[in-house]
Amino acid sequence: MPKRIVVIGGVAAGPSAAAKAKRTNPDCDVVLFEQNEHISYGVCEIPYYIGGDVEQSRLVSNTPAQLRERKGVEVRVLHRVEEILPAKKKLIVRDIALAKLREEPYDRLILATGSRPKRLGVDGEDARSIFIVKALEDAYRLYEYIKSEKPKHAVIIGGGYIGMEMAEALRSRSLDVTILHRHNLPMHGLEKETQEWILRELAMNDVQFIGEATTEGFVVDKLKRVSHVVTKDGSFKTDLVILALGVLPNSEIAQKAGIRIGTTGGIRTDQRQETNCDNIYAAGDCCEVKNLVNDKPSYIPLATIGSKQGWVAGENAAGGSAAFRGAIRSIAVKVFGIEVARVGLSSEEARASGFDVVTESVSAWSKVAMMPGSAKLSITMIADRRTKRLLGVNMIGSDGVVLRANTFAVAIQNKMSISDIQQWDLAYSPPFTPLWDPILVAANATSRKLSKP
Amino acid sequence: MPKRIVVIGGVAAGPSAAAKAKRTNPDCDVVLFEQNEHISYGVCEIPYYIGGDVEQSRLVSNTPAQLRERKGVEVRVLHRVEEILPAKKKLIVRDIALAKLREEPYDRLILATGSRPKRLGVDGEDARSIFIVKALEDAYRLYEYIKSEKPKHAVIIGGGYIGMEMAEALRSRSLDVTILHRHNLPMHGLEKETQEWILRELAMNDVQFIGEATTEGFVVDKLKRVSHVVTKDGSFKTDLVILALGVLPNSEIAQKAGIRIGTTGGIRTDQRQETNCDNIYAAGDCCEVKNLVNDKPSYIPLATIGSKQGWVAGENAAGGSAAFRGAIRSIAVKVFGIEVARVGLSSEEARASGFDVVTESVSAWSKVAMMPGSAKLSITMIADRRTKRLLGVNMIGSDGVVLRANTFAVAIQNKMSISDIQQWDLAYSPPFTPLWDPILVAANATSRKLSKP
Repeated sequence: MPKRIVVIGGVAAGPSAAAKAKRTNPDCDVVLFEQNEHISYGVCEIPYYIGGDVEQSRLVSNTPAQLRERKGVEVRVLHRVEEILPAKKKLIVRDIALAKLREEPYDRLILATGSRPKRLGVDGEDARSIFIVKALEDAYRLYEYIKSEKPKHAVIIGGGYIGMEMAEALRSRSLDVTILHRHNLPMHGLEKETQEWILRELAMNDVQFIGEATTEGFVVDKLKRVSHVVTKDGSFKTDLVILALGVLPNSEIAQKAGIRIGTTGGIRTDQRQETNCDNIYAAGDCCEVKNLVNDKPSYIPLATIGSKQGWVAGENAAGGSAAFRGAIRSIAVKVFGIEVARVGLSSEEARASGFDVVTESVSAWSKVAMMPGSAKLSITMIADRRTKRLLGVNMIGSDGVVLRANTFAVAIQNKMSISDIQQWDLAYSPPFTPLWDPILVAANATSRKLSKP
Repeated sequence: MPKRIVVIGGVAAGPSAAAKAKRTNPDCDVVLFEQNEHISYGVCEIPYYIGGDVEQSRLVSNTPAQLRERKGVEVRVLHRVEEILPAKKKLIVRDIALAKLREEPYDRLILATGSRPKRLGVDGEDARSIFIVKALEDAYRLYEYIKSEKPKHAVIIGGGYIGMEMAEALRSRSLDVTILHRHNLPMHGLEKETQEWILRELAMNDVQFIGEATTEGFVVDKLKRVSHVVTKDGSFKTDLVILALGVLPNSEIAQKAGIRIGTTGGIRTDQRQETNCDNIYAAGDCCEVKNLVNDKPSYIPLATIGSKQGWVAGENAAGGSAAFRGAIRSIAVKVFGIEVARVGLSSEEARASGFDVVTESVSAWSKVAMMPGSAKLSITMIADRRTKRLLGVNMIGSDGVVLRANTFAVAIQNKMSISDIQQWDLAYSPPFTPLWDPILVAANATSRKLSKP
């Protein structure tokens, strides 16, 4: 039985793993190292904190003291692990406050080093009016900047889901918002019908969307504030820049220690979240994950996956037995008045995975048409002609989208066919659903399309 | 190939079957007989018509002329089929308007004779202020009665889902409402936690609920209006009575013709919706259905099931090949401000089916706690200790209940275990779901309970 379990990383998967390890084996010492000041906070809530829905005090689930008290985990913030020595079962850790290095032993190690935002790599990117939406420190700084400097114009670089959420947050703070995106439509990876609806919703909410944009640099004033974002096709005046370009796995420290990295750049683990190195586990954004639709390794940095992996890594590191089988990339995002969800593969991914792809889009009412709150939603199904399996779904509309997408997620994850879905016995009541739920309407339409030569 | 397909019954499963038969085989003549005046209407929408959400004109999907024009089905309303002669492949049909009997031939016959409301069998039950919520004629009559006679007090006899919906409808018409129910809690078949929440919601909306009530008769005035409902334990003054006691299958005409009736009283069919008699199919409330949780025949008179069975019967009768595998009893009902859903077996049914039943209840937020619209909901899981299978779920709360229950419905229908559910990769976004969706919270809690001795 392990005596000392060490966890590296304190945002999401790390605290989840540490708490689970201690619960599984209360006799162990569980120690968590985090290089920043804060731990255990909701990155996904940050846009809602900026927008005003979520209070600052609610962003943090556990302070270091609370994680100790409630879960029995020893927490060392401002401690950066600089090297893993698997042969010696030791870590080299920098105590940032004291500016000292020391060795820390472990019996079992859990890597939850997370991810870092992609950068543009252009001049001026360190200006103080450029923000990322990732660490809690960044969020506090952005919040204060908006309060104190009262910016009027914002440019968001990146039209993915963080870009969408930040556009809404900044609009609700009355800023003018321009999104610069390198593709021609927002939210790359969604189907065209879905993307076009999002584009309309952005326009309706006075968000300027510039597609095919390549940022070349920033014009920075003497106060280190960006005055213009310079792109290939013109420059955009601004008081505030948000970089929302996606993330990369923090897997370098693992790689240096001889831990196997997958083709996606994330740490490779088995279903027990164990790496190729004895006694070393990994969980969260630093890992790659098995995509259950095409059975291929994927990089899917999402809190839902990380927290599940954290539990599994924690339980196994503590001597238990748990498995994380994989994921399908289930994503939901609110874009002003609409719900957007994507579960499973995109049609592009499905084709690249070798499926014989058939797509079908339907429009349906969220509830019985005349009931209060009923609204049209759109579903795009991505299916395989040969096996009739459902591979992916896009859904968009102002009502009843995300929770229905989760029902499709179960079908995709369990490799169900369209005809399986057609048989589903779903509850019906006019204030909540039509007699033929949109799920069944979509399955019936896709079935008809699949049966055509 | 059949030349003439005859359908008996025009409410839900019948039009569905007729339209599908014609679509499957356009060369057939498809004829539908209905004894009443109206066809193809939404029984489930009637409470919302009474309450004012749904306009009268929207209750009917297709008039006889429209079913003919849009779907190519010949419709004969006010025609009652009085006998089936399977050996001769003929029907004896009464033309009610002309008061004449005639014979009608068929190649294939589809029975969609539906169900009828249970009655109390006490004196005064035919008073003109007593209403049932079933046929469109009844609904129109009730609507007119409320408009013209302006009743102040209503007694609803029966505290099932129609009773709940009618209580809300009548409260929104400003009537005082008393529900008399033969059990001590509303909505028999739900778990106690769910029932108690419903009871509180009724009280909060000024609905008087009288449990353990046995109606013995009615005091009827000279105008044939009920002035009092008399029960074993007291009498209740009223201007209006709704009977909502549930329904019985209209299977007598089938039984008389030698068609096999199941132990539930409904017509027994195979997965093709074919009866034991050659060329005779059945669909909807007149049938029993295979319960996919315990694999036993059940009587589940719901429009969702009937319309699917109608399609299957129609396709097969017309020479196609389709199957209806069964159902799990998925029910949703709005009770004033709350959503109630039940999918799969009740704990009582599960025990009676021989399962080693474990139940677990959890309370969870519908969205991230601080987001607008987030509300506590309650989930009761019913699982089998031996196989760890999910057998049934109750859910109740003011937000995000019914669509989540439908996700559980998929698990139940596909005989998934609690640990399968724990692995679900569900979409997460603060405005729609918590990081750990209530579905996962419930599965994790149930898993812990199952792992205890």
